[in-house]
Amino acid sequence: MRLGRRVAAEAIGTGLLLACIVGSGIMGERLAGGSIALALLANTIATGAVLVALIFAFAPMSGAHFNPAVTLAAAAHGDLPWREVPGYIASQLAGAIVGVGLAHVMFELPLFSLSHRARSGVAQMASEGVATFGLLMVIGGCARSRAPVAVAVGAYITAAYWFTASTSFANPAVTVARSLSDTFAGIRPTDAPGFIVAQLLGAATAVAVWHWLTMTPRTDMHVSPTAVKRHGEPGR
Amino acid sequence: MRLGRRVAAEAIGTGLLLACIVGSGIMGERLAGGSIALALLANTIATGAVLVALIFAFAPMSGAHFNPAVTLAAAAHGDLPWREVPGYIASQLAGAIVGVGLAHVMFELPLFSLSHRARSGVAQMASEGVATFGLLMVIGGCARSRAPVAVAVGAYITAAYWFTASTSFANPAVTVARSLSDTFAGIRPTDAPGFIVAQLLGAATAVAVWHWLTMTPRTDMHVSPTAVKRHGEPGR
Amino acid sequence: MRLGRRVAAEAIGTGLLLACIVGSGIMGERLAGGSIALALLANTIATGAVLVALIFAFAPMSGAHFNPAVTLAAAAHGDLPWREVPGYIASQLAGAIVGVGLAHVMFELPLFSLSHRARSGVAQMASEGVATFGLLMVIGGCARSRAPVAVAVGAYITAAYWFTASTSFANPAVTVARSLSDTFAGIRPTDAPGFIVAQLLGAATAVAVWHWLTMTPRTDMHVSPTAVKRHGEPGR
Amino acid sequence: MRLGRRVAAEAIGTGLLLACIVGSGIMGERLAGGSIALALLANTIATGAVLVALIFAFAPMSGAHFNPAVTLAAAAHGDLPWREVPGYIASQLAGAIVGVGLAHVMFELPLFSLSHRARSGVAQMASEGVATFGLLMVIGGCARSRAPVAVAVGAYITAAYWFTASTSFANPAVTVARSLSDTFAGIRPTDAPGFIVAQLLGAATAVAVWHWLTMTPRTDMHVSPTAVKRHGEPGR
Repeated sequence: MRLGRRVAAEAIGTGLLLACIVGSGIMGERLAGGSIALALLANTIATGAVLVALIFAFAPMSGAHFNPAVTLAAAAHGDLPWREVPGYIASQLAGAIVGVGLAHVMFELPLFSLSHRARSGVAQMASEGVATFGLLMVIGGCARSRAPVAVAVGAYITAAYWFTASTSFANPAVTVARSLSDTFAGIRPTDAPGFIVAQLLGAATAVAVWHWLTMTPRTDMHVSPTAVKRHGEPGR
Repeated sequence: MRLGRRVAAEAIGTGLLLACIVGSGIMGERLAGGSIALALLANTIATGAVLVALIFAFAPMSGAHFNPAVTLAAAAHGDLPWREVPGYIASQLAGAIVGVGLAHVMFELPLFSLSHRARSGVAQMASEGVATFGLLMVIGGCARSRAPVAVAVGAYITAAYWFTASTSFANPAVTVARSLSDTFAGIRPTDAPGFIVAQLLGAATAVAVWHWLTMTPRTDMHVSPTAVKRHGEPGR
Repeated sequence: MRLGRRVAAEAIGTGLLLACIVGSGIMGERLAGGSIALALLANTIATGAVLVALIFAFAPMSGAHFNPAVTLAAAAHGDLPWREVPGYIASQLAGAIVGVGLAHVMFELPLFSLSHRARSGVAQMASEGVATFGLLMVIGGCARSRAPVAVAVGAYITAAYWFTASTSFANPAVTVARSLSDTFAGIRPTDAPGFIVAQLLGAATAVAVWHWLTMTPRTDMHVSPTAVKRHGEPGR
Repeated sequence: MRLGRRVAAEAIGTGLLLACIVGSGIMGERLAGGSIALALLANTIATGAVLVALIFAFAPMSGAHFNPAVTLAAAAHGDLPWREVPGYIASQLAGAIVGVGLAHVMFELPLFSLSHRARSGVAQMASEGVATFGLLMVIGGCARSRAPVAVAVGAYITAAYWFTASTSFANPAVTVARSLSDTFAGIRPTDAPGFIVAQLLGAATAVAVWHWLTMTPRTDMHVSPTAVKRHGEPGR
């Protein structure tokens, strides 16, 4: 029952996220008069901003993952029971697909259409690996302090749209759903599996790095309180 | 008396909000040299930013609704007495209209002018429904935690300007006031009622969804403290 | 002595603010290839962002006014002793002028040059009045809660650059200093006094409104605790 | 051991930072169709946003310096032991260089290439001095309160990209690494030493100013509690 509500929150949040990604891509391309930089800037600002809003709103309900890679990492870190993972991922996928349809309705396009936008090759996959690794590093860092994960994730994706050659999908559910939109934000269905593999490799690397960075260090048990305090409030 | 001050705060805040929406639309269009994307980008950044500022400033006074749909939802959730609703809505409408006039004065235009900008059709109304549903979901989520609603709402509207075909009015008072401005941000008076109906339907849906998501679940009364704790700090 | 340091902080902060306003105006105009909207967008984003950074950094030292209108309002509200006002304003003016010179050095221009940019007329003055009124309303609201005034002021000025016809100077020290820069952000010295009068009128109006909004209401002393609580956490 | 993890965090964070600076510069230039303002705007938004995300994520681990000038200032202020400085700086340099290579891989460019972009002269060096001085003032101010240094630094660099003629490197590790990229964000290796000298001078000035602004004032030991309280919560 509780789980039912949480996965409903995941579905609603992921749906609004995809409506934003796809919808703002369509709007940006229509208004930009051929300037891809302007279209992507609009797409970027909208996506980063909606992540801030949705994560603030849904984090207290479901954790606001909206992303199977985040859900799997949470389970690997012990923050979510493995038995809840399938429900989370299924609801993210369902919500994402409905969100794409919603965007198409709002912009008077067919409900779904397979994308013809090619996004393949080693550089694209390296981009997705780096993008997802960075996303999971940011979430992992914020989870270990009181940092506002909503602001950090929104800011990270804003940046990653521009610093990766793939415009940073970094999310398997988003990748599947965007293959159903033959618009600015789309991806050819045949290119989706490569993206997803790269994303999962990036996420697994981040989980391993966080595990190493934060594991209880036995050799530190004898250090002085001063050293511990210095570690707790380091540097700045 | 107290109510008098709160509705005054609503009127001032809504007035500044409308001065910003209409004024930045005029400025954007004048300077953008024909690029609608640039004009809308300026309009978007200004509107999102002013919402952050005004909600931070006025939330402790009046709740900073600036929006009859938000006021009605607050009453439906039991956060505002129904008897105060008419005062809130009247002051929002009055403030919004004065704000539009203020923008026109600042840009040397006639005090009011009926808009000729057509915004009709199923897609536009679907956009307003989705936009208002999402806005109320974001506000509802933030109200149930310590999330900064000012940042979340500013970010949401920044995104919604781009991911809806209607540029997301999502506010009946804003809709009425913008019908009095024959500028970039205007809406034909004959199209306003359709927008308002769609907004109220979106808001009502959000209220119903929040009611279901957060109602006390009787079947959960016997779950272990661990499960409750997990629900309180979920996933991430 | 303490005051000496606080006014030093005001001078440094106002200097960096002006270096940013004037410098980003020059940079924006040089790179924008004739698009005034793009130049103003760069100028806007830089100015709003630097205000966030500088107010976060200097608020614990001096209050981070950077603005004689803010200093006068603080004194009127009883938050700053009147005897400290002259020191604050003098340091703001000195810092602002040095900051303009610094921007000119960084962009290889003469140290100072009188602006030829006309900014006059009723609409411009109305714009400055509205801009400063809104700024003081935002600061006043944040001062009465725990809202982050740095974010609110940065966001407000970001918006006000676009929703006022004057691009929102809203600051007498900034107005004087910008008259010494014949660049994008400049203002003709003969137009500066009108701007300053309008700013002070807007500020005085905001002080009066806040005084009315927050004065202890004798008639409310007998209301029930419930009503008081509702006022404390209103609406949303 | 603990130090090993903290310098690893510095390396990862600085690597992602450089991947973003260089990658978003390439992407911006490719998509902007010749508009340098648009390319720099994309570069700016990405860099500012990634700083917000990375500092939120890594500050609890290592302090999130990502910058030898910040590390040296932290040591000068007594916030980091001098013996840890070499490890910090070496990891920042190594991470920065790897990050540049990563960006090149993502955009299908040679792993490293010496930049041909001239950035020399008094104005450029003055810009770097001012940029680094301002950065250290902002960090110093936030360190003395609870201000979110992640937001303040991200916002400051967003502004400084536009208000300095050099687009504000303000970081010796970034300067070295960017000399290895013959792209939008590059700097000719022969110009790097001048930048670094100017940055260190700016940082040293900021350290001296903060030392003076915050040293315990002996003459104040007899002031009344009221005056102390007023200093603690000044002005606004």
